[in-house]
Amino acid sequence: MSVGGAALAVAGTLMQTPSPDRLTVTDAVVEVDQTGLITAVHDRAGTEGAKAARRALATAAQRVELDGGAVLMPGLVDLHVHAPQWPQLGTGLDLPLERWLFEYTFPLEARYADTAFAEAVWDDLVPSLLAMGTTTALYFSSVHGEATTALARACVRHGQRALVGRVAMDHPSGTPEWYRDPTAAAGVAASAESIEAITAVESSRVAKAEAGGGAPPGGSNGARKKHTDCEQTDGGAAAKAGGSGDAVNTACAAAPLVAPIVTPRFTPACSDALLEGLGELAEATGTPIQTHCAESDWHCEYARDRFGASDAAALERFGLMRPRTVLAHSDHLSSADMARAAANQAGVAHCPMSNSYFANAVFGVRRAMAAGVGVGLGSDIAGGARPGLLGVCQDAVTVSRMLEDGVDASLEAPARGVAESRIDTVTAFWLATAGGAALLDLPVGLIEPGRRFDAIAVHSDRPEGAIRLWEGIDDEARRFEKLVRLATADDISNVWVDGTAAKPRPTARQRTPIVQA
Amino acid sequence: MSVGGAALAVAGTLMQTPSPDRLTVTDAVVEVDQTGLITAVHDRAGTEGAKAARRALATAAQRVELDGGAVLMPGLVDLHVHAPQWPQLGTGLDLPLERWLFEYTFPLEARYADTAFAEAVWDDLVPSLLAMGTTTALYFSSVHGEATTALARACVRHGQRALVGRVAMDHPSGTPEWYRDPTAAAGVAASAESIEAITAVESSRVAKAEAGGGAPPGGSNGARKKHTDCEQTDGGAAAKAGGSGDAVNTACAAAPLVAPIVTPRFTPACSDALLEGLGELAEATGTPIQTHCAESDWHCEYARDRFGASDAAALERFGLMRPRTVLAHSDHLSSADMARAAANQAGVAHCPMSNSYFANAVFGVRRAMAAGVGVGLGSDIAGGARPGLLGVCQDAVTVSRMLEDGVDASLEAPARGVAESRIDTVTAFWLATAGGAALLDLPVGLIEPGRRFDAIAVHSDRPEGAIRLWEGIDDEARRFEKLVRLATADDISNVWVDGTAAKPRPTARQRTPIVQA
Repeated sequence: MSVGGAALAVAGTLMQTPSPDRLTVTDAVVEVDQTGLITAVHDRAGTEGAKAARRALATAAQRVELDGGAVLMPGLVDLHVHAPQWPQLGTGLDLPLERWLFEYTFPLEARYADTAFAEAVWDDLVPSLLAMGTTTALYFSSVHGEATTALARACVRHGQRALVGRVAMDHPSGTPEWYRDPTAAAGVAASAESIEAITAVESSRVAKAEAGGGAPPGGSNGARKKHTDCEQTDGGAAAKAGGSGDAVNTACAAAPLVAPIVTPRFTPACSDALLEGLGELAEATGTPIQTHCAESDWHCEYARDRFGASDAAALERFGLMRPRTVLAHSDHLSSADMARAAANQAGVAHCPMSNSYFANAVFGVRRAMAAGVGVGLGSDIAGGARPGLLGVCQDAVTVSRMLEDGVDASLEAPARGVAESRIDTVTAFWLATAGGAALLDLPVGLIEPGRRFDAIAVHSDRPEGAIRLWEGIDDEARRFEKLVRLATADDISNVWVDGTAAKPRPTARQRTPIVQA
Repeated sequence: MSVGGAALAVAGTLMQTPSPDRLTVTDAVVEVDQTGLITAVHDRAGTEGAKAARRALATAAQRVELDGGAVLMPGLVDLHVHAPQWPQLGTGLDLPLERWLFEYTFPLEARYADTAFAEAVWDDLVPSLLAMGTTTALYFSSVHGEATTALARACVRHGQRALVGRVAMDHPSGTPEWYRDPTAAAGVAASAESIEAITAVESSRVAKAEAGGGAPPGGSNGARKKHTDCEQTDGGAAAKAGGSGDAVNTACAAAPLVAPIVTPRFTPACSDALLEGLGELAEATGTPIQTHCAESDWHCEYARDRFGASDAAALERFGLMRPRTVLAHSDHLSSADMARAAANQAGVAHCPMSNSYFANAVFGVRRAMAAGVGVGLGSDIAGGARPGLLGVCQDAVTVSRMLEDGVDASLEAPARGVAESRIDTVTAFWLATAGGAALLDLPVGLIEPGRRFDAIAVHSDRPEGAIRLWEGIDDEARRFEKLVRLATADDISNVWVDGTAAKPRPTARQRTPIVQA
């Protein structure tokens, strides 16, 4: 924190979920230092907190006071985004996974050999997702190294936190010859190069920020070195005011804006040699891993036929199930697979909408959590047609109810679904914030001292939106549920990553009726 | 059509679904007369059509030329809205139906004894739904006659087409004593009075329109008397240009802006005497009927216990299954029940999202259509937390896929779901427009000569929205799918009912970032 005061102080109603079953609501003033680190969260309900809050607001270099209709929330962590599929969002959900890939998706992804095309897409995708509240994204890019580096650069340019993965895929029958790594060795080498290139993008960003001392998009966490001693000016009381109780283990831990992630597409697209090589690469470089796991009946049968084991067991065998491994979908994990994921500290990106289109089943969030598996949420752009993660939270709640009750009325009720599968909006929001952050070991997902200020402000009183608050009817818990279920991107007024406000998208058009003479 | 030209000519890309499996896309100019009747649809693809279109635009009293990013579509017909539940939209979905009613919903609905409160809600609800593209709504009101009449007046004031039903409910154990009709006879009498009051609201509207000759909100269809001979100035060619082929049977049929509908809540809330009395009332007055049918396991067991028959069979027995009867949900209809509904020309309001929360199953749209049952879509506000019907279309597609594939991965695939249940966005949009209109026998749901001009314009290029079109990737069919799956209320720029533009909501706030010094 600077001597005169915080770099940024944000005042407003803070809603967040420090655990899967707990919503906290605080009349808060959040102090953020010039590096984007949250240094204090003052609760104005108490006399001391109110006094500290006034002082914080009076001394901050920049103040943002949200009006009563807006709510401050942690930014959203989307654990599964196929960046190159952005142009097909909302289309092509009529085919099963294995045909969808060859007929729609691989042809589109192959276009990213053209880096200019890639850059045009990234310059729309990244600010669009930011405006929807996605402050951290896990991106599958394409097989192309250049396009992938360009995606990392776009994240820096627009100020979005991201793990960016060059997709590795080389299987002679599981991929088309016009869209694959030529050999396993070439795939591993290209992934290693991509890790270096993305690391260089981040290093360059940090160097620039440290040299300039300013606040470039994405802020500067190069300065986080100043915080290695984890001093918290406002101490424990401030931490408690944030409502979260537990101190964050990752306080002052590495919080890169962009970082690489090892990305074997999925077992059917990769040779054994590629899978093995990528496992070794991840271990050697300490890079996290993302891949698809046990998504559909077809995918699981394929794994059994090829490996004589479950898809999860095969991934483990290849060294691809490690801490911070994000397994997308994972609908068909057996109990043994769940135990395997938990033992390896791998987690799941639950993508509720794409479950309907490609997975032949619904992922059991409660079952996974009970088994000790980390879970977060993913939009699965474009296998899911809902890009904003608040909407994905509602989907997660809705599909959990379908899993619990079942769908086929011709069956007797007890045979229809899976008892005790339901989650509520609090759990869903936890998955979309603190849950996803925990899985990635990133100090985001909660607004509390020691974490980075990745946050959004969501309006609950925009007349054009669907959210309405009624005196004598709504309380803060209901307001939270309405925000999660009903807010759209247009209801999100502010987005910060690392303490820096994301730029509004360049062109804005009002929803004005067209009337002519 | 007036001598000098149409009252209104609207030019733009017209997308609509004349049948469940057919999307038509026309570069169209639509002519609308001063009564709100569509008199011609010119297809500019042909020389003759282009010439007629130019003439129409040159001579119309009012011209609206949509820019290339906007698409003209039929207005949306929401077959199931609980108007008094608007304040609880997005909340309270944690309890099963029978508890949800007593703990959340009945207490809220009881408040509508206060007509001033009711009017405040209606003045928010009606323009909000209009802005979301709902040009026709089937409203369950509350038990209160005054609040119900006020809802009909609000629809006239804001220009929304609606069938408005006073809710009848008197069962001593199925309703709380503080929210019910005191006796069956009183319930039937109150429903009869409500029919008269709503009919009077409509008559007064028509009389005013005829006297004024102007275009009050909702337009004037009093003047439809001038069209009883069904003359179509532009003849058959124009009708074909609309893309729909079949002439509409309901051309120049009654198309009230507001009309009453007999509304027994559902069998568990009504005594036999009330159900029987309401059946007689519907028959005597020729008023359509709406109720809930076979929604949940509990509802079905209740009906079997009480009537020794299915819920649908009981409704039929009480004279409550007739042409234009709208049965909400109906998830648990047997094949015999489906045949019963088809034989009586009753239809179903499919409410996909609330299926997840209250129905213990998913309604089989394809199965019902194959059995000859009319189907449309409902939001089920507030049992569903998605107020805009375009979003409900995406939900309908999504849950149909869950029904087809099932949800429980621990079952073998063939035992998991119901084969051939899926619908696509074309079918879903048909349900939301022409399907719902057919069920109600209202001349809306398609833009073609002889129907009323109930329409919306939806933007496919608003930067703040989620829809993106990519050259060389998207075609018109993909654009349609993106519009249906991704558009929000903010993407809807224009809404017309009966040829009259709905007023934009009074206060508009921009989604501007809050930044202070």
